[in-house]
Amino acid sequence: MRIQDLPTPALLVDGADLEHNLSTMAKALPGARLRPHVKAHKCTALAQRQAAHGHRSFTCATIREMEGMAAAGLGADLLLANEVLDARRLGELDARVTVAVDSSETIAAAVRGGVREVLIDVNVGLPRCGCPPERAGDLASLARKSGLEVRGVMGYEGHLMIVPDREKQADGVRDAMALLSAAHADVGGEVISAGGTGSYDLNRVATEIQAGSYALMDTAYGALGLPFRCALQLEATVISVSEAYAVADCGLKALGMDHGNPEIVGGGSVWFCSDEHVTFAPVAPVKVGDRIRLLPAHVDPTAAYHERLHVVDDEQVLESWPIDLRGW
Amino acid sequence: MRIQDLPTPALLVDGADLEHNLSTMAKALPGARLRPHVKAHKCTALAQRQAAHGHRSFTCATIREMEGMAAAGLGADLLLANEVLDARRLGELDARVTVAVDSSETIAAAVRGGVREVLIDVNVGLPRCGCPPERAGDLASLARKSGLEVRGVMGYEGHLMIVPDREKQADGVRDAMALLSAAHADVGGEVISAGGTGSYDLNRVATEIQAGSYALMDTAYGALGLPFRCALQLEATVISVSEAYAVADCGLKALGMDHGNPEIVGGGSVWFCSDEHVTFAPVAPVKVGDRIRLLPAHVDPTAAYHERLHVVDDEQVLESWPIDLRGW
Repeated sequence: MRIQDLPTPALLVDGADLEHNLSTMAKALPGARLRPHVKAHKCTALAQRQAAHGHRSFTCATIREMEGMAAAGLGADLLLANEVLDARRLGELDARVTVAVDSSETIAAAVRGGVREVLIDVNVGLPRCGCPPERAGDLASLARKSGLEVRGVMGYEGHLMIVPDREKQADGVRDAMALLSAAHADVGGEVISAGGTGSYDLNRVATEIQAGSYALMDTAYGALGLPFRCALQLEATVISVSEAYAVADCGLKALGMDHGNPEIVGGGSVWFCSDEHVTFAPVAPVKVGDRIRLLPAHVDPTAAYHERLHVVDDEQVLESWPIDLRGW
Repeated sequence: MRIQDLPTPALLVDGADLEHNLSTMAKALPGARLRPHVKAHKCTALAQRQAAHGHRSFTCATIREMEGMAAAGLGADLLLANEVLDARRLGELDARVTVAVDSSETIAAAVRGGVREVLIDVNVGLPRCGCPPERAGDLASLARKSGLEVRGVMGYEGHLMIVPDREKQADGVRDAMALLSAAHADVGGEVISAGGTGSYDLNRVATEIQAGSYALMDTAYGALGLPFRCALQLEATVISVSEAYAVADCGLKALGMDHGNPEIVGGGSVWFCSDEHVTFAPVAPVKVGDRIRLLPAHVDPTAAYHERLHVVDDEQVLESWPIDLRGW
């Protein structure tokens, strides 16, 4: 099928750019050095491509993602890098399941749910989940006493992913990872899981990096000068043209908006997005029926709106992958 | 089922508040005076409730919404209040289908697709779709020459939906509707379709109001002092607690973020949302495992993330409705 024949809005990934991103990362962090985070794309077909590049351990953010990955035969080593209070669906999975814990309650939930392996989640500076570093050792003891295998620690330096000054970013990552190292000394285990696309080459402490965005990318990460290409684009149709602006048929329900407006490929400025529209000033005149492409500002909540991801070259749709890990 | 037993995040609507909203609106705009917009909730079960309140004509924003409404037996009079270049799926529907047109191209698309009835979409001040008012008559002639039935005009004063000063809002709506009246004089037909939740009681020109948000509401509309209650809430579980803040298991993939952060029912301040987390400062201490409720800032892109809408009372889930009009 030609791209031109896809109904719009349609989420596209350039197949060559995707391969570039996957192979660039696999060269930098081969095999188990990368634990790709599937929350960025929520697509088991894309995860299969990541597996084909040598990664067999994966990171998830939701129980649904864990279930979908296990069902897709990608359950060799799944980490739920998130806290849950009801782990029963995890305990039932035909997969190797590890879950993050940061409290006595989440440890108890893992036990109740029949999960056998955990990582102690440590706060390394992002105000989100994770115990204070100095509590990690006690939690590990509690988990072991409760019958759980403690594989090590995780600590996501998410506040340092998008820092324009690379030197400052490197300093921040080093400080954050010093906290994780200290916690790891108290916890033990083989795994130190951390990092993301913004710090994949700066994090010297993690035994495995949890990067996800690198595969598809977005304009926020694209501004950092990383060696990954903005492979994800939203195809839309111009449905109305006025003197000063034009309107295309994609909007708030096709784009994660927390990082702001999308960019238009080839230039032009976005005025605003409505539920099913983007109003924009084109750089050159456009006609009703023309196609435009947008680069989303944030990949994760964009992908979560779409049923399918179409792998394309310049003209053709090569494959259409279900975005099958959505919901909870 | 008790609300407490729902996996989180879970989208809830208070059944009594929903009924209050539907009956309040049906009293103000009975029967065909309201053409409820389903884009706000994307849920045919909720549309059935609106139909039970006497409305049998509906507004849609996407072809998928039109298809779903027709399949649900709600196709007595469906308006696609949006422009499309490929109307074939509309022409195939077993329903009365009217589509908005604002150009020769969209008129040609309606003809090609087998659609028989149109409204001339007029720009009344919102820079989005709609022809200049002075072009409406010519487009109506073109549509009629092309064999289409022109039912009248539509013109959405969307830039005036959320105006804190009601007097200014009323003035703005009057001015916008003067443009639509002038266009209608040139176009003819029985229908003048316009308005929304923010102007449902101010618009004196429209023969039918396209309100959608009134049924569920959100904090943006909730700030206006309208007689509709914020019936939509997102239930989440506290999964991590620190000294200064707590974290619950809902985030950017459960909340439309274009209008900003959600509010916490009962107080507390949201620090920020991540993909699957909200970090917040509670007003009173919370424990891991506690439930919290959030009020979304924008109903439409919030509902579009969820598979189900749970109708609840104070403790119980009364019904669970599929949000079945998502996608395109």
